[in-house]
Amino acid sequence: MILALSCPDRHGIVAAVSAFLFQRDCNISDAQQFGDAATETFFMRVVFEPVEGDAPEAIRAAFAEVGDRFGMDWTLRGTEPRKVMILTSKFDHCLADLLYRWRIDELPMDVTAIVSNHPRNQIGHVDLGALPFHHLPVQASEKAAQEAMLLKLIAETGTELVVLARYMQILSDDLAGQLAGRCINIHHSFLPGFKGAKPYHQAHARGVKVIGATAHYVTADLDEGPIIDQDVERISHRDTPEDLIRKGRDIERRVLARAVRYHLEDRVLMHHGKTVVFGD
Amino acid sequence: MILALSCPDRHGIVAAVSAFLFQRDCNISDAQQFGDAATETFFMRVVFEPVEGDAPEAIRAAFAEVGDRFGMDWTLRGTEPRKVMILTSKFDHCLADLLYRWRIDELPMDVTAIVSNHPRNQIGHVDLGALPFHHLPVQASEKAAQEAMLLKLIAETGTELVVLARYMQILSDDLAGQLAGRCINIHHSFLPGFKGAKPYHQAHARGVKVIGATAHYVTADLDEGPIIDQDVERISHRDTPEDLIRKGRDIERRVLARAVRYHLEDRVLMHHGKTVVFGD
Amino acid sequence: MILALSCPDRHGIVAAVSAFLFQRDCNISDAQQFGDAATETFFMRVVFEPVEGDAPEAIRAAFAEVGDRFGMDWTLRGTEPRKVMILTSKFDHCLADLLYRWRIDELPMDVTAIVSNHPRNQIGHVDLGALPFHHLPVQASEKAAQEAMLLKLIAETGTELVVLARYMQILSDDLAGQLAGRCINIHHSFLPGFKGAKPYHQAHARGVKVIGATAHYVTADLDEGPIIDQDVERISHRDTPEDLIRKGRDIERRVLARAVRYHLEDRVLMHHGKTVVFGD
Amino acid sequence: MILALSCPDRHGIVAAVSAFLFQRDCNISDAQQFGDAATETFFMRVVFEPVEGDAPEAIRAAFAEVGDRFGMDWTLRGTEPRKVMILTSKFDHCLADLLYRWRIDELPMDVTAIVSNHPRNQIGHVDLGALPFHHLPVQASEKAAQEAMLLKLIAETGTELVVLARYMQILSDDLAGQLAGRCINIHHSFLPGFKGAKPYHQAHARGVKVIGATAHYVTADLDEGPIIDQDVERISHRDTPEDLIRKGRDIERRVLARAVRYHLEDRVLMHHGKTVVFGD
Repeated sequence: MILALSCPDRHGIVAAVSAFLFQRDCNISDAQQFGDAATETFFMRVVFEPVEGDAPEAIRAAFAEVGDRFGMDWTLRGTEPRKVMILTSKFDHCLADLLYRWRIDELPMDVTAIVSNHPRNQIGHVDLGALPFHHLPVQASEKAAQEAMLLKLIAETGTELVVLARYMQILSDDLAGQLAGRCINIHHSFLPGFKGAKPYHQAHARGVKVIGATAHYVTADLDEGPIIDQDVERISHRDTPEDLIRKGRDIERRVLARAVRYHLEDRVLMHHGKTVVFGD
Repeated sequence: MILALSCPDRHGIVAAVSAFLFQRDCNISDAQQFGDAATETFFMRVVFEPVEGDAPEAIRAAFAEVGDRFGMDWTLRGTEPRKVMILTSKFDHCLADLLYRWRIDELPMDVTAIVSNHPRNQIGHVDLGALPFHHLPVQASEKAAQEAMLLKLIAETGTELVVLARYMQILSDDLAGQLAGRCINIHHSFLPGFKGAKPYHQAHARGVKVIGATAHYVTADLDEGPIIDQDVERISHRDTPEDLIRKGRDIERRVLARAVRYHLEDRVLMHHGKTVVFGD
Repeated sequence: MILALSCPDRHGIVAAVSAFLFQRDCNISDAQQFGDAATETFFMRVVFEPVEGDAPEAIRAAFAEVGDRFGMDWTLRGTEPRKVMILTSKFDHCLADLLYRWRIDELPMDVTAIVSNHPRNQIGHVDLGALPFHHLPVQASEKAAQEAMLLKLIAETGTELVVLARYMQILSDDLAGQLAGRCINIHHSFLPGFKGAKPYHQAHARGVKVIGATAHYVTADLDEGPIIDQDVERISHRDTPEDLIRKGRDIERRVLARAVRYHLEDRVLMHHGKTVVFGD
Repeated sequence: MILALSCPDRHGIVAAVSAFLFQRDCNISDAQQFGDAATETFFMRVVFEPVEGDAPEAIRAAFAEVGDRFGMDWTLRGTEPRKVMILTSKFDHCLADLLYRWRIDELPMDVTAIVSNHPRNQIGHVDLGALPFHHLPVQASEKAAQEAMLLKLIAETGTELVVLARYMQILSDDLAGQLAGRCINIHHSFLPGFKGAKPYHQAHARGVKVIGATAHYVTADLDEGPIIDQDVERISHRDTPEDLIRKGRDIERRVLARAVRYHLEDRVLMHHGKTVVFGD
């Protein structure tokens, strides 16, 4: 099981958590912690194996007391796969990458649906297999209706995480708000540089020597959500905007895949518009 | 000698340049070229060894005809060291690095002067040796006077390149204009992210996962000059602003040193607010 | 068309090549060159557009004179896709990656066949579509027979490049010799570190802090062929051999894809067991 | 204070350590831990602030019981600077870098002495200030005598860490043994590639596309000691061995500086010929 928590930093947190797990005979296989001096907040992630017969519900019920005592924001989950919905566009490289990683068991998830603004035959380079595909076109006049359908689908499928894999549509403030903390987007620039549209063209115009991509939680404030991961590549004057787009695909897919995996493994804790990432 | 040129792209440029050098019996040791499709501009850098007795002045005079024919913007220089003035502040890590590289012959330059807003005893971690040091304090009310002294010093010493090695002062538009194309600054962020003051604190506040530094030519438009080089490092939530400053020092000094060396070796050609860098 | 050449370095090569192209009214869109001082060898790659109606055969025939004059080893090809055969094993991440890139037109190739030591149903995570698949099992006693079938298939399909995409079989000296310069392998370590089997386990045992992958031309001398590209990732004590294998997959696929693309675009010139790579 | 420990992994270690610190009212500011599944060993590093008046000796004495109970290998140190001796050669870039970092308070150390095989006037690019310098020439016939002087100096100065900053001399097995765990070397290749002499020339001859440097503890088995840190840079066919040496200096100095800092901050725990590095 994975315990992830944050709370006001004070004496005795680790002692209390480790005593709890020790008394319950849990076997800790990994633990990371972090105290943020600026905000006096403490963060912790513990992976442990309960003794046989100790039910997750019982552990959660018992831990509630510790959580309450320290004013913790906490989750305690099993390692069963999480339900994930992937939204995409004709730019399907991130989708293809996520599905391949899922098929070789790199990503502990169940895919509830693939959703696109474009019909299925335009997702041309990816084998969707038997995965449910939903064509939900976005028209300016009916954006609210489209988002309502999306939310209904999320609810019906029990989707826990929505991944915008180059979805190329801006969510309404309302939808962004409803998906807070459970919707990850990949932006094709090293934010905060080149917010908004066509970042590779912006990068080319500015003449930067490094390009990047940023995976972040979606918030109502566009391109301002908490950053989970970023990566970059060197470029040169020889690179046209098309070259940047090509090189960028490689950065985007590995940054998004890393961010999704970190989220699925409860490695990401949000705090004050930023993230604590207990990486591997 | 090093020939560096740019001109409107059309048939026959390489043929003309290489025929010129061939007929003059010059031995080409390195050549790089680039045609920018977007602006239809051609760039070229050739390193060659003239035959004994062929004087640089004579070669330059002869080449003028080729340059005129193609409307070239060109320079043809020997490999003698260039005159460089370094401006710094109490943050002397870039200064220390440049001087060390100069001492071990990594940078083909003669240092004409070290200039600082602070008195010499505040440049405490660097051995200036016998280098001329000038304390030119900047006071808001007398900025124009200080810049006039600076310009006078640049003129008197024959300085060809001014390096702002964490100088921490903003040049006036007038001075920036006068030094156009011969003044390199190091900005401690991966521009265009985090322009302006205290970029590491901005980066910490935004929660980015990568920090960087940018070496660029100084223009009147602050932090918007043509970028010569950039580099980055991964960071994590564990890093405080002070950690970013520490890690940033390493990025700044290597980016600035690379940009200065590229400039000294005539590897940088400016064009439309961007650079072509014929790297090594 | 792409002209790629190497020859003993002497005066006038660039002048001759550029005069040839100028006189034939070819429009050069990219050119790179390199003179290796140690071996006194010159390398050049020129991309150009012939005038309409100037047939490739005619250009090649005319260029032969220049090639002969300078003792060049040269090729002059159109930009039509090259025929590529991919050999793989159950580790199909490189195969999946190459096929995706091919489908989105990142790799200018026609895939002649997919060959594996394992039956098709074990290549489980990749959509092979209508591509010809050949199951050519390797048994120790019949390696020669299997390789004969392979060579026959290469000949029949007109395959110009063989890619060992984690093929996991060692080619015989004879086969390696026959495929010299047209067979690329991906080795899952930063050669020359960790040659031979199970490099990630070797890396874990040694406790390195960086792992890598190497794409190289196959030679009879195992893991000693000319290196085309390498890349690396930082790791830590937290990484198990399984983590290294996972992280390594990302490195392997991007290094192999880059090497294959460079080869397909005639960017790689071999020389004395090393390569000159005119990258983009 | 910094507590660093390793011990056989079993239930209750974190609980015991955190209970100890909690009861003593210590304020934990940072903690990292790691359980190595392969060797069933547990590693931990805790930075904490004791309450006023709680003497380090008293804490150490009290902790001994916990240490004994779990069979820990542990140290508990204050954050006062450690005594460091730096050995160098005419290649003084690592020395210059370490001294600069020390002067700006990046490295918590006191420099006990600079030692070189060469006379002081050959360490020409570094300001040694008032630091004690010892010229201890190595002659094949008198290596034992030279090493005896070195050991005497280490003992007399109370040196706790010896840094081989491109010392270019191989320590005898005996000396390596006596300095086990407290002598760090920088090797100018990404080990295990290119062991032994002239690694950059080896790298150039092999035609690799990436070079690196490795900081490791010195052991009798040359270039086989536990690796603390490594880093790399991309290179190309254009780079001569001299270019590799130049580019390598940048890698060497940052890798060595990082390794030394990690050691000084008790971030490195050795185990079975490898290291656990609790980085920042």
